[in-house]
Amino acid sequence: MKILLSHGDGGKLTHQLIDEVFRLAFQDKELDQQGDATLVEARSGHLLISTDTFVIHPLQFPGGDIGKLSVSGTVNDLAVSGAQPAYLTAGFVLEEGLEIGTLKRIVHSMAAAAKEAGVRIIAGDTKVVEKGKCDQMYINTTGIGFTNQPGRLGIGKIRPGDRVVINGGIAEHAVAVLSERGGISFSSPILSDCCVLNHLVKQALEKFESIRFMRDPTRGGIATTLKEISVSAGVDILLEEERIPIKQEVKGALELLGIEPYYMANEGKILFVVSAGEADAFIHFLRSIPGFEMAAEIGVISEGNGQVLLKTLTGGTRNLGMLSGAPLPRIC
Amino acid sequence: MKILLSHGDGGKLTHQLIDEVFRLAFQDKELDQQGDATLVEARSGHLLISTDTFVIHPLQFPGGDIGKLSVSGTVNDLAVSGAQPAYLTAGFVLEEGLEIGTLKRIVHSMAAAAKEAGVRIIAGDTKVVEKGKCDQMYINTTGIGFTNQPGRLGIGKIRPGDRVVINGGIAEHAVAVLSERGGISFSSPILSDCCVLNHLVKQALEKFESIRFMRDPTRGGIATTLKEISVSAGVDILLEEERIPIKQEVKGALELLGIEPYYMANEGKILFVVSAGEADAFIHFLRSIPGFEMAAEIGVISEGNGQVLLKTLTGGTRNLGMLSGAPLPRIC
Repeated sequence: MKILLSHGDGGKLTHQLIDEVFRLAFQDKELDQQGDATLVEARSGHLLISTDTFVIHPLQFPGGDIGKLSVSGTVNDLAVSGAQPAYLTAGFVLEEGLEIGTLKRIVHSMAAAAKEAGVRIIAGDTKVVEKGKCDQMYINTTGIGFTNQPGRLGIGKIRPGDRVVINGGIAEHAVAVLSERGGISFSSPILSDCCVLNHLVKQALEKFESIRFMRDPTRGGIATTLKEISVSAGVDILLEEERIPIKQEVKGALELLGIEPYYMANEGKILFVVSAGEADAFIHFLRSIPGFEMAAEIGVISEGNGQVLLKTLTGGTRNLGMLSGAPLPRIC
Repeated sequence: MKILLSHGDGGKLTHQLIDEVFRLAFQDKELDQQGDATLVEARSGHLLISTDTFVIHPLQFPGGDIGKLSVSGTVNDLAVSGAQPAYLTAGFVLEEGLEIGTLKRIVHSMAAAAKEAGVRIIAGDTKVVEKGKCDQMYINTTGIGFTNQPGRLGIGKIRPGDRVVINGGIAEHAVAVLSERGGISFSSPILSDCCVLNHLVKQALEKFESIRFMRDPTRGGIATTLKEISVSAGVDILLEEERIPIKQEVKGALELLGIEPYYMANEGKILFVVSAGEADAFIHFLRSIPGFEMAAEIGVISEGNGQVLLKTLTGGTRNLGMLSGAPLPRIC
């Protein structure tokens, strides 16, 4: 069975698709209401809202698919902003001719990631476009979360002397996607790090008072994200190449491809800025969690004017800018 | 200047596009923060949330464009659900090669519609896909609104004897889009009815206590929307063809095309279910508002089991089902 243009016309087939694919997988009483909007309760007076459209190619890659990515990407954006993610909406653009079996697989993968994160998918929309006007499917997810500590985190709280910590090896998502695209296989398969991180963040915020700021280094990699932070905070960030965690096989693959890892997308990593005093205990905590054994301090905040300086293995210093002119399109 | 793949890589050009196009047009202090999520205050304990992706072809049509449509569509979905729309997110999928001038025009049109509705666009996302993987641009908007009367409206409140009222002529949006697509011009140009309706709804709810339910008959037209209502409420709806308002030129155009108006999309219309006692005063109120002079009672709710029965001009009765098998793709 394939997606037809009629699946998007708002009539019989649209209703059938909603019933047999989306409601079945997402199982939420709010979706069963089928209203124009969904009523939910505010859990606190402060909402955090985030939106992201996923256009990744290919739909499936080692370690995940567009469904898992579309849920974890938005959940993680809420979490690093200090919210408890609560609700997601899902907007689909489907290409005429898409196998409904493929759609079902992706939607089940969204449902599984939402369950793991403890968020509900409470509203959705489906559009169908003609063959050749989309690449199988694009998914927008918009997330709503709540916080009782709206002022706790902020780029303005970053101080010289603070440490930059990451919860594991970099560039895994990008390398997994590139290997799938290129049909390259490695002796030890490289999986995307794509995962939901809200439970980790919740624990971290409960245990470590001095966490100042968090951001997930997705598109543009850690270099672009740290550059954004350094410019917004008006500080310099001094990175030590030898301390930046990267799995051996990821490093090897990137050397083979002639690409460096600092601009490569991650989907399960967070850059934390934490006080010098708590940094060691924080890393110890992270490493105690399965999957984050490679957590490390990778740099220090210093007074400055928005530079990200990398002390290289050979003893030199490189000034890292934002990603520019070497795009890896559709990595998320 | 055209959209390049690099505009979507999260690096320098992405930041430039955000600054020069989106922040400039939307002018919101929250967008200036450029966080992963946006913090806003809940105005009440009850949120209403709605999401919609817009894939309309062509981007511009008589009476509107995808920008105006993407804001008013989501604002109206919130409004008919009883919410005061407050915040919107905007997720863009752009095709490589799109003229940046076109994007700017569309974005300014979104900003104008948001201003008219009194909503803020507080978060966004931009992706770029290769030429041929999208048709110029698709826009997802997700809306958040608030209500202090979460139980006021509901399909379960509909009672036999209630009246169905519409605020003006049907099928204008669909005919405007079809005429643009076909390059057909009529002696009196037919404009889409696309507009924001939240101010109208607010006034209506303040003045007319017996409004039970509202829904905007977009994709699938009034027939599909009324069928959804009749099935969900477990009632029949008896329509009188001669009372259904339609502009003469719209009727003429549809006769020419051999299409009937009941399944044609509207983007500025609402079907209201109101008590028999208040119906006349409500129509009088609607007609007093510029643009809604054609408001009319078009039918009555009766006991039944989900049928929509149309008493035709020739005295017969037709049983209207949902739109099925005659799609007009990408009408919204």
